[in-house]
Amino acid sequence: MKERETLKVNNLGHLEIGGCDTTELVAKYGTPLYVMDEEHIRKICRSYTEVLSKKYPDSLVCYASKAFSTKAIYAICKSESLGADVVSAGELLTAISANMSGENLYFHGNGKTPYELQLAVDNNVHAVVVDSEFEIDLLDFICAHARKKIGVMVRVNPGIDAHTHKFIQTTKVDSKFGFSIADGTAEQIIKKIREKNNLEFLGIHCHIGSQIFELTPFELAVEKMTDFIVTLNKSGIVVKELNLGGGYGVHYTDEDRPLEPCQYVETIVDKLNECIAVKKIKAPRLILEPGRSIVGEAGITLYTVGAVKEIKDVKKYVSVNGGMFDNPRYALYEAKYDVALANRMLDEKTEKVTVAGKCCESGDMLAVDVLLPPARPGDVLAVFTTGAYNYSMASNYNRNLVPPVVLVNGGESEYIVRPQSYEDLMARDEIPSWIKK
Amino acid sequence: MKERETLKVNNLGHLEIGGCDTTELVAKYGTPLYVMDEEHIRKICRSYTEVLSKKYPDSLVCYASKAFSTKAIYAICKSESLGADVVSAGELLTAISANMSGENLYFHGNGKTPYELQLAVDNNVHAVVVDSEFEIDLLDFICAHARKKIGVMVRVNPGIDAHTHKFIQTTKVDSKFGFSIADGTAEQIIKKIREKNNLEFLGIHCHIGSQIFELTPFELAVEKMTDFIVTLNKSGIVVKELNLGGGYGVHYTDEDRPLEPCQYVETIVDKLNECIAVKKIKAPRLILEPGRSIVGEAGITLYTVGAVKEIKDVKKYVSVNGGMFDNPRYALYEAKYDVALANRMLDEKTEKVTVAGKCCESGDMLAVDVLLPPARPGDVLAVFTTGAYNYSMASNYNRNLVPPVVLVNGGESEYIVRPQSYEDLMARDEIPSWIKK
Repeated sequence: MKERETLKVNNLGHLEIGGCDTTELVAKYGTPLYVMDEEHIRKICRSYTEVLSKKYPDSLVCYASKAFSTKAIYAICKSESLGADVVSAGELLTAISANMSGENLYFHGNGKTPYELQLAVDNNVHAVVVDSEFEIDLLDFICAHARKKIGVMVRVNPGIDAHTHKFIQTTKVDSKFGFSIADGTAEQIIKKIREKNNLEFLGIHCHIGSQIFELTPFELAVEKMTDFIVTLNKSGIVVKELNLGGGYGVHYTDEDRPLEPCQYVETIVDKLNECIAVKKIKAPRLILEPGRSIVGEAGITLYTVGAVKEIKDVKKYVSVNGGMFDNPRYALYEAKYDVALANRMLDEKTEKVTVAGKCCESGDMLAVDVLLPPARPGDVLAVFTTGAYNYSMASNYNRNLVPPVVLVNGGESEYIVRPQSYEDLMARDEIPSWIKK
Repeated sequence: MKERETLKVNNLGHLEIGGCDTTELVAKYGTPLYVMDEEHIRKICRSYTEVLSKKYPDSLVCYASKAFSTKAIYAICKSESLGADVVSAGELLTAISANMSGENLYFHGNGKTPYELQLAVDNNVHAVVVDSEFEIDLLDFICAHARKKIGVMVRVNPGIDAHTHKFIQTTKVDSKFGFSIADGTAEQIIKKIREKNNLEFLGIHCHIGSQIFELTPFELAVEKMTDFIVTLNKSGIVVKELNLGGGYGVHYTDEDRPLEPCQYVETIVDKLNECIAVKKIKAPRLILEPGRSIVGEAGITLYTVGAVKEIKDVKKYVSVNGGMFDNPRYALYEAKYDVALANRMLDEKTEKVTVAGKCCESGDMLAVDVLLPPARPGDVLAVFTTGAYNYSMASNYNRNLVPPVVLVNGGESEYIVRPQSYEDLMARDEIPSWIKK
């Protein structure tokens, strides 16, 4: 647990988030429960916008909403003057329903459907970040029928792949996303876009990876992308916007040592200002798309401990009433999480245990070989840094309900996603007429 | 594709399932679409019940419903005289709502909640398969208050671990599930249950793995479980029921060579009859819990092809309008699937491609390096053997909608899960009062 003003142990020895005692949250809302710390979300947003307003005012922070997409988060982002990056009709419609303006939306994705492109046009999104030739033709066709012109950016592969704590440079990136700069495809695509009557080429976009802790890959991305701007300028192509994606690492466990979120942004803009000066290019509007770094550490999940079972000489399992249906990241990536007993934060962590989810699948774990005080049924187990890619990836696997989400701030709490009910779960089920007897 | 009478190419060169042309299904229901072949489901159910009625009549096949849990599948299972294995309140309530009798339900799981146990008692399930001491105490307590007695089985670890095409024997199984036979824990637990006033010890349960192709692990399980019955008998403990779980492999690609489903059952009952005779034990009621083998091959998923993108000298990506939100098994296990263009089944498969999902995640694939005819936008892509652990694991990741499920039979089709809408997606979202302005 990375303590902060809004995430700490209170004088009852309980975990407190956003001024709310977690044991009181559990009493009020039950478990499993996602809790999101609004003040922390806003703090991160502001740390980005402050750096940018000082050092690169012609810019927009777009929240990468796939990390956590609900009406409330768009409302918060809007009030912090952020835009959003959306990747589906569902995200777009949720953002719009929270009164985000299309003007502040960028629509990404390698497989946008015709319906989604239509929706992007209907809602006047600022830019569709195109990812295939098919999409370019289709979008132009849709715009022609709508008698509208739409802004278009191109997702490019700068040849930097910065996944999982290391990064590689390559001219051939094997990815379903983007067009290669190195082999000339990206430039060809941009030329194709400029021939379309209903598309306005705005600029280029890249995203070099996720959960990156080093600064070098980001500097390198700026270098490569501005090089590409120089190349495009030579062909008479103006690049109005530069979208550098996200990927700033967050703290899951003490093995992770991220910098302060704003340091990534600071490094990027310093490098960009330098490249603009050195390469004598016209300063483009800068778009950054942090997702996980805005909501990740803001979120915790609260569970109730059930069975505690020791397998002699092997392992001690602590079962909780959640699992891969509310947090599939261990099952997907063997992701590591920090955990604690929220109702007994001052008790010594004397036991190495594995926190098991309740799904009928041997791989359903939440944290393997972690230290806890001796856990008892009824204890409240908190998992930290679950604000990103937990609710957004949640399922009804094993026919479990998706937990509700509560927003906390200054001791107040309110649902931002109400609980699912068993009626909801069965609402779309039908038994065909020929089977009913 | 493993052809069968209800899954074949029709004379238009289209894929046909349950007598329905898949291109017509797509025209009627759209994509992505899960399709389930009722006749095939019933055929597998009958292949099991027929073997058992001949060779081991005191038995029940319980459908392991975590593979695919909807009202319709319980209705089908009920009409085929199957019971069901449920692992959550959601599965239990869905089974009950499809008029399954509690008498034919077994409730499994390592982390059942107090609410779930209460529900099991309220609905008079035949047996709760207990998995921890805490659960035993809690269940006895709940029964005392309800003035009811409930049947209890014990999940044991026979020391056979038969995951992923090989199996190991060990006395120490590291699993969140069950109690070890070898170290004496299982027997202790059974003795504890027999001391409880409100619990009736019925028997023992094991589940040795999933997607098993060999017969030996199953024979070994029968050997070990009947050995354990002998041990228990010596302590004066009668075992009325023996539940051997499931795990029979299905065909995903031609690399998988499962036996006919009924061969697994035949082998198990032959071995059990032999052990009963040799070991002179009283024949227990036999419970088998196939899940995947009943619904897996019955299901296909239909998608529409969008962008097709070639990365020179690297790979060709075919994007479809689904992905890890409707089928997370590649992301979770790198599961392999067979695919085809359902509208052009007779075209030669001349291209090696990777089928990419539409989620904004580089790992979102449906099939890597598979052969297809040259795919074009608008083609219908079918993924085979998606009946198990696809709909049941589906999520709204990237705010995509969970596809509907259609049941087909004899040329008829009807929804068994109606489409989710964007309104459904946002129905539980709230913006807290203090943010609204």
